[in-house]
Amino acid sequence: MKKYNVAILGATGAVGTRMIEQLEQSSIPVNQVKLLASKRSSGKVLQYNGKDIVVEETTPESFDDVDIVLASAGGAVSKKFLPEAVKRGAVAVDNTSAFRMDPEVPLVVPEVNEQAVYDHKGIIANPNCSTIQMVVALQPIKEAAGLKQVIVSTYQAGSGAGQTAIQELDDEAQQHLDGEKMTADIFPVKGEKHHYPLAFNLLPQIDVFEEDGSTHEEWKMVHETKKIMAGDMNSDAIKVNATCVRVPVVIGHGESVFFEVEDNSKLDTAKVQELIKNGDGLVLQDDPAQQLYPQPINAEGHTETFVGRVREDPENRGSYNMWVVADNLLKGAAANTVQIAEKLVEHDLVRVPEDYYGKE
Amino acid sequence: MKKYNVAILGATGAVGTRMIEQLEQSSIPVNQVKLLASKRSSGKVLQYNGKDIVVEETTPESFDDVDIVLASAGGAVSKKFLPEAVKRGAVAVDNTSAFRMDPEVPLVVPEVNEQAVYDHKGIIANPNCSTIQMVVALQPIKEAAGLKQVIVSTYQAGSGAGQTAIQELDDEAQQHLDGEKMTADIFPVKGEKHHYPLAFNLLPQIDVFEEDGSTHEEWKMVHETKKIMAGDMNSDAIKVNATCVRVPVVIGHGESVFFEVEDNSKLDTAKVQELIKNGDGLVLQDDPAQQLYPQPINAEGHTETFVGRVREDPENRGSYNMWVVADNLLKGAAANTVQIAEKLVEHDLVRVPEDYYGKE
Repeated sequence: MKKYNVAILGATGAVGTRMIEQLEQSSIPVNQVKLLASKRSSGKVLQYNGKDIVVEETTPESFDDVDIVLASAGGAVSKKFLPEAVKRGAVAVDNTSAFRMDPEVPLVVPEVNEQAVYDHKGIIANPNCSTIQMVVALQPIKEAAGLKQVIVSTYQAGSGAGQTAIQELDDEAQQHLDGEKMTADIFPVKGEKHHYPLAFNLLPQIDVFEEDGSTHEEWKMVHETKKIMAGDMNSDAIKVNATCVRVPVVIGHGESVFFEVEDNSKLDTAKVQELIKNGDGLVLQDDPAQQLYPQPINAEGHTETFVGRVREDPENRGSYNMWVVADNLLKGAAANTVQIAEKLVEHDLVRVPEDYYGKE
Repeated sequence: MKKYNVAILGATGAVGTRMIEQLEQSSIPVNQVKLLASKRSSGKVLQYNGKDIVVEETTPESFDDVDIVLASAGGAVSKKFLPEAVKRGAVAVDNTSAFRMDPEVPLVVPEVNEQAVYDHKGIIANPNCSTIQMVVALQPIKEAAGLKQVIVSTYQAGSGAGQTAIQELDDEAQQHLDGEKMTADIFPVKGEKHHYPLAFNLLPQIDVFEEDGSTHEEWKMVHETKKIMAGDMNSDAIKVNATCVRVPVVIGHGESVFFEVEDNSKLDTAKVQELIKNGDGLVLQDDPAQQLYPQPINAEGHTETFVGRVREDPENRGSYNMWVVADNLLKGAAANTVQIAEKLVEHDLVRVPEDYYGKE
């Protein structure tokens, strides 16, 4: 059996450390693991399957003997290094937004559009965390009845902004409990002009603002959903309306999803619940009598997407509400990335085609 | 000038203490203030305009010399005592859900349906916190262009569950920061079978579940909005779809509101912003370039409703998103209640009609 050399780019981050764990648990036959990061983080020692591995500074040559790259070190790092990796024959699965909208790069959630991995030219993009859990929940419904439109409001955890952001949220919470003024340096967006506390607060800004008043996070949810579910980032086959809000939760995004199906003749609330119960990567947690519904603290550490509060709108037959929760660092990032790599292995696609991405 | 004797029922609670402050700042000419509570809280000393007042245990006779009752001691207490107060000639403004759906009881948000106070028979109901801030924000839009439907997802603060719930949220947060297991006795709903931590978590249950899978809080948002904006709790003039979620915020509800107008010919994003800017009780905080948008920590202590993130849906012309935040204990409760009492005084309606509520 072929074994693969795997490099994790951004290995010391909130997602990177989870990529290591997900890789340990994956079906990928691993030969060697290389942990890559910035110069600042190089020299750190992390473990893979109980074995110490020294984190190395990333250079183009880091990828010389690598088969699979799992990247989560920020868009700029991916833009710089992934074409270098591909040029050297490695296939990269990228968790940043750098290549997601590139028509030459498949954007993949295995439960939804696994076949898209066949079109890769060396780079496969992993969608945004908030998009992934939503499309996983919507997929069985789309298959059964078609999907006309989605209106989603997100409740996104602080860890989506990285490891230092988790610490900031904890620090702010302690300041508040001690009666001190909360201080903020990261939220809502690292590098933005203004920073606001997230603890005991709500921030309706994730990522920077677009010209049209939406945030880039909202733009991502709209266009990634279209690309994944309808094959084209500008498809009008599914309408998507998104409002993204950061909430003082550490891990686990919640989403209030309103969706309208094309053909409601065979659906009702019970049938939607059944579709979700049997759906790929989904766990139905929906029993009001037992107060059973998805919660971030219960989703943490799991790779499934949890769905509950399913109900048809009595005033809009054919439209439904549901509440979707997933671990944003796992299914929203590390787990989906490793799952894509598993599919590459399964379909024997761990090789770069002649017209590889970025070939001059 | 006539001066009024005012009783505050539930004076020691999170809303009651704020009713005292709102009454101090109100335009109501006050003769005497009586602070009423349960036997357990009687004997406590609170202040009104710097003067000590001893809290008394509520009895039917407490209302003998009272003109206006402001009530926020729970539905059961209102059901028991407000008819007694009315029988004794007092007019009651009730912040509980006890009488809201009673066709003989006006449900009033002064910015929206001030005229409804004229129909009172001794009891006027104050709507649910999450309803109030939404209808205040929607009213200028409805006036300008009509309103076909609303789809709302709420982000509701813990203080909506009362003073002890605020303490529970703080205690849980400290447990989490100390690496301890969080313990819960109140959230999601006092007296329910199961309790879950709210700190660093999301609870998609506010109030108990209805037969149809919605929560009573969601039911309230649907039917109160219809009663306030369309005059009938079952009106089909405005469709309302609500998902209510408790978030780990102490004070200040957030709402992601999607709404569709009847006539979009004179509207666009800028016009909606202008309508809100000039709307009663509204403050527009909407400047993406300056990262200006409503946040709970900024709304706390204010009686206005704050609106931002206004944008027309490019795929659904005539539909808009907005983000609405208000202090749930003030505009959502104490401030709106006192504001209703001000209107009663202003329109000389502080008297009980012959066919008063509950007359046998």
